[in-house]
Amino acid sequence: MGLRDRVAIVGAGCTRFGENFGQSYTDMLVEACHEAFAEAGIGPKDVQAAWLGTAFPDVGVYKGRSGMDLAEPLGLFDIPITRVSNYCATGADALRNACLALLSGEHRVVLAAGVEKLRDRAPVESIVKLMVETGHPFLQKGLTAAGTFAMYAVRHFETYGLTREDLALVSVKNHRHAVNNPKAHHRREVTVEQVLKAPMVSYPLGLLDCCPTTDGAAAVVLVRTEDARRLNPDHVLIKGLGFAVSTGWDLPFFDARHDFLGFRAAQVAARHAYEDTGVRDPLREIDLAEVHDCFSIVELLTYEDLGFCKPGQAKELLREGRTALGGDLPVNVSGGLLSCGHPVGATGLRMIHELTRQLQDRAGARQVPNARLGLAHNIGGPGAVSSVTILGRA
Amino acid sequence: MGLRDRVAIVGAGCTRFGENFGQSYTDMLVEACHEAFAEAGIGPKDVQAAWLGTAFPDVGVYKGRSGMDLAEPLGLFDIPITRVSNYCATGADALRNACLALLSGEHRVVLAAGVEKLRDRAPVESIVKLMVETGHPFLQKGLTAAGTFAMYAVRHFETYGLTREDLALVSVKNHRHAVNNPKAHHRREVTVEQVLKAPMVSYPLGLLDCCPTTDGAAAVVLVRTEDARRLNPDHVLIKGLGFAVSTGWDLPFFDARHDFLGFRAAQVAARHAYEDTGVRDPLREIDLAEVHDCFSIVELLTYEDLGFCKPGQAKELLREGRTALGGDLPVNVSGGLLSCGHPVGATGLRMIHELTRQLQDRAGARQVPNARLGLAHNIGGPGAVSSVTILGRA
Repeated sequence: MGLRDRVAIVGAGCTRFGENFGQSYTDMLVEACHEAFAEAGIGPKDVQAAWLGTAFPDVGVYKGRSGMDLAEPLGLFDIPITRVSNYCATGADALRNACLALLSGEHRVVLAAGVEKLRDRAPVESIVKLMVETGHPFLQKGLTAAGTFAMYAVRHFETYGLTREDLALVSVKNHRHAVNNPKAHHRREVTVEQVLKAPMVSYPLGLLDCCPTTDGAAAVVLVRTEDARRLNPDHVLIKGLGFAVSTGWDLPFFDARHDFLGFRAAQVAARHAYEDTGVRDPLREIDLAEVHDCFSIVELLTYEDLGFCKPGQAKELLREGRTALGGDLPVNVSGGLLSCGHPVGATGLRMIHELTRQLQDRAGARQVPNARLGLAHNIGGPGAVSSVTILGRA
Repeated sequence: MGLRDRVAIVGAGCTRFGENFGQSYTDMLVEACHEAFAEAGIGPKDVQAAWLGTAFPDVGVYKGRSGMDLAEPLGLFDIPITRVSNYCATGADALRNACLALLSGEHRVVLAAGVEKLRDRAPVESIVKLMVETGHPFLQKGLTAAGTFAMYAVRHFETYGLTREDLALVSVKNHRHAVNNPKAHHRREVTVEQVLKAPMVSYPLGLLDCCPTTDGAAAVVLVRTEDARRLNPDHVLIKGLGFAVSTGWDLPFFDARHDFLGFRAAQVAARHAYEDTGVRDPLREIDLAEVHDCFSIVELLTYEDLGFCKPGQAKELLREGRTALGGDLPVNVSGGLLSCGHPVGATGLRMIHELTRQLQDRAGARQVPNARLGLAHNIGGPGAVSSVTILGRA
């Protein structure tokens, strides 16, 4: 059936991403949701159902285990609120479930919010410690996220002649973009030399190839398209959405056939989103993309997973500047995860906020001229969970 | 709009609940889902989307943080799978989101599964330790679940003349029912004297007023009603569904007005479910109910929250045997949480499994004769999250 043009975003909100020591988990949620409410011209009492995305409720704040943590600060009384969690696609999955609920006919105005408070404890005390202590199958053996994605980088070096300089170009591009994003965690340019000389985290990924640990929240108010104009004439439409959980091929640790060159879940999610939207040639038709550059290598292999180029050609797209602001298909004009950071539950909705502002021509110095179609992509877990959402001007 | 008669359960499955040391988290999921698949006459490849309910993924197994943990063991490749978490209403909320997705038109065959593996660590090492260490706002101060609900019991003693003997009668009734339920954790009768003499946990709740810590999984396959007959002529319909998150009134620790006599979230959820179904007099119209007797007092105040009787009259319903098997409205003929235990993510779906078998006349020695309408109820968090689902014969 497809979501094409059936759901509209009438309000979007996003906190600054960073070390938000001055804001609690709840403060950030309130800020993001009220920015979205204000744009939609609604109040909390108008919200008929909500979805809260939080992936790591246990990192020091004990918030986000249930919908209750969204209800209380916003005064969303007596409505259903679901907490969803799906690794790095958590925020995107809150959005997806909210869309399905609208289309069910049960609700007319719904909220999707995502948030994470990761900086109140030192990283060594937070996610990794939690995962190790509670029995994470890979982390317990010392295989961190950086270590996992590093294997993909080495495989690309070997197979396609990618180099550390190529990875560095991703970081340089996204940090340059972030200078124009007041919501980004890090807003300073870096040079190829700085990236190459940064402390090594897991070869070949150095510190500037890895996204920082960050606090933040983002939210959107959604309605069915027939209700959108009344609430916000400057709304944005959901053109297509794909979401796939894929194991076997994508749990390399359990499947000897995995090639370490891309993620099947992302390929499947993209195919569904393109079918919904009617996109056949994404490089030509998509005007900008926010992709999940948790590590520099992931942006490059995502160009291929999303069909922006053929396998092995991502480095050419990057080297030729075609994915920089001003190129054919600017990627991560927000600065991406590498500069914005990655508060897990918030990231997918931060991307949706960015695309919304771009499609409204409200993105200031980082505006992509004449942006009409924008794509958001997440990949989570050991590459097993992926979301691709395409937004368009109404 | 309402869910009335628009969604059907074509398959249900449930493991034995208990100390399932011989089964992993994954083993239990596989057993429950395959029982549901077999009844629906489908295989994993027919499932187009799924929802996994797990509330405590961190208790020793590191499973249930994402939809991936359902995908992998079942071979559900390339479809969207959302993990939901909503305290004790987690399983019910997996069901609700699955229903909305069906009604959206995006999917035709969906799965809702719930599971929890709580016994692989000693209780003192598991949920409570986890919550205290990660900053739970009440548990950190020593206020456990038993301690919270004990305050409701004392308030009922004071206001309505309830006694410890009344609480004991709930436990006696539900343990008696459980003798006929091969899936229950504890299958032995207890006497009023045994309940009163059991070790005190938090006055006035003794050990037999509290549900045990338990492993288990349950699952259902859902389709839109027009597709149901083809898959399973003996399907069951969802007649109504209410889900409410309610703070303020229900976070007594934050609202001095709270009366400690009932839960607003449950009252609201019940009203929505009754409106959907067209129920006006639940005591007459509902044939059986599975309610959230995590502690004996909760079953009693739930009679009032659900409108089975007026405030203060629950003890009469109980004393007169009207909620025992053979009475007007048998409650917890499965044995309830007190006997089945409470693997959090599974409980709501275990109730749906029980109602399904009852409405199919397949509940054996605990069958409620001529059951046509069954109700499932959950209350979670500090009374803030509640679900009421009503099922009926097709």
